[in-house]
Amino acid sequence: MELTIALLGFGNVNRALARLLQRKAAALKTDHNLTITVTGISTHSRGQAIDPAGIDLNAALAAYAAGSLAPLHKGAPLADTMAFIEAVPAALLVEATWMNPRTGQPATDSDRAALQRGMHVVTANKGPLAYAFRELRDLAKARQLGFFYESTVMDGAPLHSLKREGLPVTTVNRITGVLNSTTNSILSRLEEGVPFAAALKEMQDVGLAEADPSNDVDGWDSTLKIVVLANVHMGADLRPADVDRTGIGDVTIEQVQAALKEGQRIKLLCEAWREGDAVRARVAPTPLPLTNPLAGVMRTSGGVTFEMDTLSSLTILEGDSSPDTTAFGILADIVNIARGRYRLSAG
Amino acid sequence: MELTIALLGFGNVNRALARLLQRKAAALKTDHNLTITVTGISTHSRGQAIDPAGIDLNAALAAYAAGSLAPLHKGAPLADTMAFIEAVPAALLVEATWMNPRTGQPATDSDRAALQRGMHVVTANKGPLAYAFRELRDLAKARQLGFFYESTVMDGAPLHSLKREGLPVTTVNRITGVLNSTTNSILSRLEEGVPFAAALKEMQDVGLAEADPSNDVDGWDSTLKIVVLANVHMGADLRPADVDRTGIGDVTIEQVQAALKEGQRIKLLCEAWREGDAVRARVAPTPLPLTNPLAGVMRTSGGVTFEMDTLSSLTILEGDSSPDTTAFGILADIVNIARGRYRLSAG
Repeated sequence: MELTIALLGFGNVNRALARLLQRKAAALKTDHNLTITVTGISTHSRGQAIDPAGIDLNAALAAYAAGSLAPLHKGAPLADTMAFIEAVPAALLVEATWMNPRTGQPATDSDRAALQRGMHVVTANKGPLAYAFRELRDLAKARQLGFFYESTVMDGAPLHSLKREGLPVTTVNRITGVLNSTTNSILSRLEEGVPFAAALKEMQDVGLAEADPSNDVDGWDSTLKIVVLANVHMGADLRPADVDRTGIGDVTIEQVQAALKEGQRIKLLCEAWREGDAVRARVAPTPLPLTNPLAGVMRTSGGVTFEMDTLSSLTILEGDSSPDTTAFGILADIVNIARGRYRLSAG
Repeated sequence: MELTIALLGFGNVNRALARLLQRKAAALKTDHNLTITVTGISTHSRGQAIDPAGIDLNAALAAYAAGSLAPLHKGAPLADTMAFIEAVPAALLVEATWMNPRTGQPATDSDRAALQRGMHVVTANKGPLAYAFRELRDLAKARQLGFFYESTVMDGAPLHSLKREGLPVTTVNRITGVLNSTTNSILSRLEEGVPFAAALKEMQDVGLAEADPSNDVDGWDSTLKIVVLANVHMGADLRPADVDRTGIGDVTIEQVQAALKEGQRIKLLCEAWREGDAVRARVAPTPLPLTNPLAGVMRTSGGVTFEMDTLSSLTILEGDSSPDTTAFGILADIVNIARGRYRLSAG
């Protein structure tokens, strides 16, 4: 099978994907009889390129580094992102773009447009899931297309495929997770006696925290992630504003050290649970006993626990993450769409 | 889709499956358009029954409790298990029978016969995987049949579907696991100062350890499990005799308490790793730092860590297990065979 794909965004994640596609080309062919050709790449600030014959990925990486993809473009000029989505000759769109965490845009509009055009969509973006999951899921289903999103939570760790493939006819009753690297790292440094401001600056200096850290520190990133998990795994229809959200800004060295003396570690915990027919969610600094495996989630690792009506519980812990692990989740989604895993029915 | 299945063995696990099939019948229909009918049940000591119209599962549970399934049988008499496999009008065989851990029989012969007859096979039995994985896998593939085995390791926790669906084109380089409840429980009691013999007797009294505990205590159960994981997830072709095996019989209260004082817990650890082109495996009592999530695996829970070339690592921890969780893994396999997940290729 030959699969044509288009990349929306060519930041750290999709550039890692370009390298991974090259590294795994032989295994994709051997294990899954799959040949993947990239026919278009669209960036926000370094131009767009479409080549129906396939874009050489090393050339694309070099062109990006040199400042513009435009030299690789074949065909009529493209006005904007929407024009790219309309024009690119690809069966599947990989969307890994910037989005506003307060609106999920413009990623949601891009994903919708691609599905409406009849393309499968793989997104690494929490926004479309947190703001428009049901709409996009139903749109994909109506058109018999794949809409997969493995890399939206815990990078490429197989959370969503686990539920889809490993936990059929299962009701998830509770989800708890430690899902944000920046706050994980700051809380660890507080344990060691490093003040909040200094710990944050360290993260910024090594590129692990944004210049504006509020998205992480105030719990917005964690909020979007628990909304994604609740909507996808518990059938909820939450929006980020529905989550009871407290960031780590007020957590002190004294608090984390006192908790540790009592055998507890404070984590920015994400929780979703059922109350009657409703699903509720909360993000807040929470002391966890050190015997809870989520208490051991440090730095750029992550962890989540599902409680269910079939298995009693299941905890998934990922090791250190990077753009490479996020790219892997995207590749897994591509393979799974290519082999029809979006068809859930028997027969 | 209507799927006919036959149950080989009607012990704790397949009886739990019979109850689960009833409890989840509506969800199977709604979520997967799947209706499952049991057309045959075979036991070692309480007779066999075949009914092409479908066996009422409550009637089967009652007949089993009363001592014989024979009153439910329709048709010619059946000489033995092989005659049942030949005669039963079912598309899929669920095999959850006794096997000799030194040979994997008679389970391996049953699975082979069912595949040769053109039936899909779901086994909850480590034996066929530890002694004949490649043969059975290749036989199923040649006949375009499903051969699934989710419940062979860590009960129904989705380890095998995780690899199959969530980790495509991934090379697993190392597996470590804590996979045996009896030894877990005994080691915990040693920590608390209870002598080995007393701890073992406790387990036997509550039915968690066999009258002959050597299968667990000497590491045979763990050995079969690491062989299954190595063969399935690392492409190895190991047999139990290839594993460097040490049981927990010589572990003392003093050792486990001394380890704990140094922040370590002794576990019967299963390991498989690559050495050049070979895969090696070992089972032995091993001190793990308490910060290792596998050190927190207690009683009837279990845990495994995969190290890979795509994601850095992934740890899966299951909560307390029971025949119900094993039955769930079987049901997941049935659903996944019904929706064609044994087809690995794109297109």
